[in-house]
Amino acid sequence: MAFEKVKRSDNYSEWYNNLVKNADLAEHSAVKGCMVIKPYGYAIWEKMQRQLDDMFKETGHVNAYFPLFVPKSLFEKEEKNAEGFAKECAVVTHYRLKANPDKPGQLMADPDSKLEEELVVRPTSEAIIWNTYKNWIQSYRDLPILINQWANVVRWEMRTRLFLRTAEFLWQEGHTAHASKEEALVETKKMLDVYAEFAENFMAVPVIKGVKTENERFAGADDTYCIEGMMQDGKALQMGTSHFLGQNFAKAFDVKFQSKEGKLEHVWATSWGVSTRLMGALIMAHSDDEGLVLPPKLAPIHVVIVPVYRSDEDLEKIKQAMKPLSAQLKQAGLTVKFDDRDTYKPGFKFAEWELKGVPVRLAVGMRDLESQSVEVSRRDTKEKFVVPMSDLQARILTLMDEIQTNLFDRAAQYRAEKMHVVNTWDEFLVAINEKEGFAFAHWDGSGETEEKIKELTKATIRCIPMDQASETGVCILTGKPSQGRVVFAKAY
Amino acid sequence: MAFEKVKRSDNYSEWYNNLVKNADLAEHSAVKGCMVIKPYGYAIWEKMQRQLDDMFKETGHVNAYFPLFVPKSLFEKEEKNAEGFAKECAVVTHYRLKANPDKPGQLMADPDSKLEEELVVRPTSEAIIWNTYKNWIQSYRDLPILINQWANVVRWEMRTRLFLRTAEFLWQEGHTAHASKEEALVETKKMLDVYAEFAENFMAVPVIKGVKTENERFAGADDTYCIEGMMQDGKALQMGTSHFLGQNFAKAFDVKFQSKEGKLEHVWATSWGVSTRLMGALIMAHSDDEGLVLPPKLAPIHVVIVPVYRSDEDLEKIKQAMKPLSAQLKQAGLTVKFDDRDTYKPGFKFAEWELKGVPVRLAVGMRDLESQSVEVSRRDTKEKFVVPMSDLQARILTLMDEIQTNLFDRAAQYRAEKMHVVNTWDEFLVAINEKEGFAFAHWDGSGETEEKIKELTKATIRCIPMDQASETGVCILTGKPSQGRVVFAKAY
Repeated sequence: MAFEKVKRSDNYSEWYNNLVKNADLAEHSAVKGCMVIKPYGYAIWEKMQRQLDDMFKETGHVNAYFPLFVPKSLFEKEEKNAEGFAKECAVVTHYRLKANPDKPGQLMADPDSKLEEELVVRPTSEAIIWNTYKNWIQSYRDLPILINQWANVVRWEMRTRLFLRTAEFLWQEGHTAHASKEEALVETKKMLDVYAEFAENFMAVPVIKGVKTENERFAGADDTYCIEGMMQDGKALQMGTSHFLGQNFAKAFDVKFQSKEGKLEHVWATSWGVSTRLMGALIMAHSDDEGLVLPPKLAPIHVVIVPVYRSDEDLEKIKQAMKPLSAQLKQAGLTVKFDDRDTYKPGFKFAEWELKGVPVRLAVGMRDLESQSVEVSRRDTKEKFVVPMSDLQARILTLMDEIQTNLFDRAAQYRAEKMHVVNTWDEFLVAINEKEGFAFAHWDGSGETEEKIKELTKATIRCIPMDQASETGVCILTGKPSQGRVVFAKAY
Repeated sequence: MAFEKVKRSDNYSEWYNNLVKNADLAEHSAVKGCMVIKPYGYAIWEKMQRQLDDMFKETGHVNAYFPLFVPKSLFEKEEKNAEGFAKECAVVTHYRLKANPDKPGQLMADPDSKLEEELVVRPTSEAIIWNTYKNWIQSYRDLPILINQWANVVRWEMRTRLFLRTAEFLWQEGHTAHASKEEALVETKKMLDVYAEFAENFMAVPVIKGVKTENERFAGADDTYCIEGMMQDGKALQMGTSHFLGQNFAKAFDVKFQSKEGKLEHVWATSWGVSTRLMGALIMAHSDDEGLVLPPKLAPIHVVIVPVYRSDEDLEKIKQAMKPLSAQLKQAGLTVKFDDRDTYKPGFKFAEWELKGVPVRLAVGMRDLESQSVEVSRRDTKEKFVVPMSDLQARILTLMDEIQTNLFDRAAQYRAEKMHVVNTWDEFLVAINEKEGFAFAHWDGSGETEEKIKELTKATIRCIPMDQASETGVCILTGKPSQGRVVFAKAY
């Protein structure tokens, strides 16, 4: 391929940027901080969307759509939420452009179209949605409301990275309303489980489920649950969050319901979301120095067939010979690409499909037709082996499962190697700075200590893991008593 | 149901608003001009999306995503396009809010966050996309580019109607780039055909394919093709447009390619879109005084089973008896709802599902289990008939086809009754004002005459139909010569 490769070991960050660009996933746009998601990148996102959407629907949720804009007076209502997002809000102030009298050919915001009230471009939709739910909820019979929205949101960012941190991004946001605290808590955790299942079984990325500390909580939540994945450089990436919002939004927007017992009570809420950030996690968890590596369950193309030929006649023979296989694989739910572009040579095509992470590649020449066998390449392990034509379909189908499993196992293994249980400050520094991984450590539970550790090491508490045996100990920094270990790491 | 019904014959416009609200399709939001699409309405939109998306992909298109914002300097570049949309643009001028020192608890746009260059919230994406294509296109090998985007857009509107005209709406916009004029023209017409097929075969709405007059053309297009449907009140609704953009955007954004012959040439372009407006068309084309009527191909629920019972034991028996049928219908691709809510009586449920347009309803009581037969109701004709349990599955499947066909035929018939071929001004007035329909009339081809007719009658030229025998005549208003008939109508 006509581009320079960057090795992970040389510069992980540059490797990532280079890969996103060269595999045609996304690029920066003319709008500061906003990205263009290119067709190949978008095809992967669509696969994620479709799967998540099915999982949301299976758990009883429905989709809806709420406005892009939030009037400032609504945005302000839940104070913590407003305070948390105010610094990154795009603000619409005018609704018309007019010719600029001083600059021919140019337009300007028409001063006569100034809005009485500014509109915030949604950074998240709790405010506009709870203002709407207010009219939908009178009685316990109207509950629960289990709604999800697929949308774009804007959070102004100065330092952006494709997929990981952009001013505009695509996401889904679930917003549910419940009659009781218990039910809302069950929902919060249920959706965390859905996210964990998606991360592990579809993205092939093992995750730690946990609760955020108060410092890291969603603005307006009583508790934020999260899944955290480890990237190949040992850094953490928050892959999804599920918030227990208590009655905060119900109180801010005065949303009450009449209970079965006839009492007026505030409604309980959750919200939960994952975004195009998951694309960053997918890329960083599995890819290698040759390019993207995709788990079959999320690959837009599962199998690419590259014909090796000299004449148009040979090409046609190869094409015909591979038709039955393609048809069978398609029937089994796989997407097969026969790459018959005559503008590129096979070597170029091999490299290109490797770069794009297609799980299985077949190279088929005239000699293969004679011998009735085909060379199969696995993208994940780069193994090559020859398979008799008659076994090809079955072998490819099992390969899909093998690759999916191998990617998860590989990610679980590098994660295991970089998970360090530490008991002293020195061990902590070694784990974070030298071994570059996660540190399971005791912490005294104070926000100040957390802040101090962040200042000293750039490591933050990713979460208080949900699945751990209770264990007492002493804080690695202050020596004060601790009730359990938390996960520290540098994070994206 | 606990709402007042409005008859179409009494007030068609109020009937529509009432229906959209009571069938839980959409509602006005706290943001002026923006709507909330409620779950049931969104489920229909999702069905439309899925089908259209499949059709776009079958015709070789891929999806991608471009930024929500367009920098003003890019927006200005294609002058006609900019001029056409300038008056309805939401403008972002600041990227941060801060506490308002004069009003405790309130926020204000932070003056220090004023953008150097204003950002326009996309009213359509030609500008940002062609600025991007510029970097993607060097050679004829890079063409064609066949990209579609599903997105929200904003066109500020003072007078809004749910689905039909809202400040923010959801749509898809295809943006293609081609090496030749011929190829771009073929694409423009191909996508018009896709829209027509969708309208007729899925929405069950017959459409007229045609070309817009210069006055009605998309700002920045050389030609705008459209499909026009007729609503039950005889008014026209533009259901989709496909634009031949010539080289206008390529010239504005300096997008050139090296041809096979080695020459540098400007790229040819098309764009095409349909929006949540289609929801309005779907509602107005088929629904009746009892509520929504949905074609089976776009119905979120195909069959509702309402149990008629006195005891929980009976309910359980009915549920068990209907399970095999539900399973069979699901296997055949239908969505079946068993309405076992104990908070409502059967009569209420019948009215509710009628209001929501579910194509087929079954009412099942204990006597039906004994007689092994069930009462089936068709939503479109309101016919009721008893079907033996053993025939039920087959009968329901054929009913789906019958209802789909009947809705199209019915719409085609009322359209035929309101299509008037007229030759004089008086006939024209009768057709438009008294018979309230479409008028096929000769027109002298001038924008002035078109404008004049609009002033006099509120009727506009919906399109110059593509499928018509050539015929000369004289303009109904001016008596000047005409080369063919055009379609006049009042329009949404």
